[in-house]
Amino acid sequence: MLAWMNRAAVAETLATGRVCYFSRSRNKLWRKGETSGQTQRLVELRLDCDGDALLVLVEQTGVACHTGRRDCFFRAARGGEWHEIAAPLVDEHVLYG
Amino acid sequence: MLAWMNRAAVAETLATGRVCYFSRSRNKLWRKGETSGQTQRLVELRLDCDGDALLVLVEQTGVACHTGRRDCFFRAARGGEWHEIAAPLVDEHVLYG
Repeated sequence: MLAWMNRAAVAETLATGRVCYFSRSRNKLWRKGETSGQTQRLVELRLDCDGDALLVLVEQTGVACHTGRRDCFFRAARGGEWHEIAAPLVDEHVLYG
Repeated sequence: MLAWMNRAAVAETLATGRVCYFSRSRNKLWRKGETSGQTQRLVELRLDCDGDALLVLVEQTGVACHTGRRDCFFRAARGGEWHEIAAPLVDEHVLYG
């Protein structure tokens, strides 16, 4: 998954060991799994060469994607089209119902 | 590494099998490895759930990072500080000299 963090999200993630992002659409901290239960335990936080991107290694409870898939990158470009390469493991209405 | 693609970069990457990004600072296509020789052969291009992020699986020639490291995420948060967890494999002056 790709998400955003601000300073507060980074600080909370490091302090609690529970991954917290910043939701730009809701303009507030997004404690991953707060609604769905699909939390992420921080394994390691890494910073890139020019200091503007983070890689978050996590232990994922359940699925990371809101569609009920393990991760968000479930479409692959093949023969000029996007092909679904993973099916949902959980119904998203169960996650957010 | 994290980089940007525009429509032309995606099209060229799929057409050639050689990964091409879009440099926002130089405002032009960035054919990865054109200067350094550290090219990326496309293995698979994946699209995320809401269609605004791509995951590019590649076969990397040499190092991906301009610092001469295999990847860009070579600093890890440990005990309140960033620690370097990987050393350069190639001198960057050799890559870009």
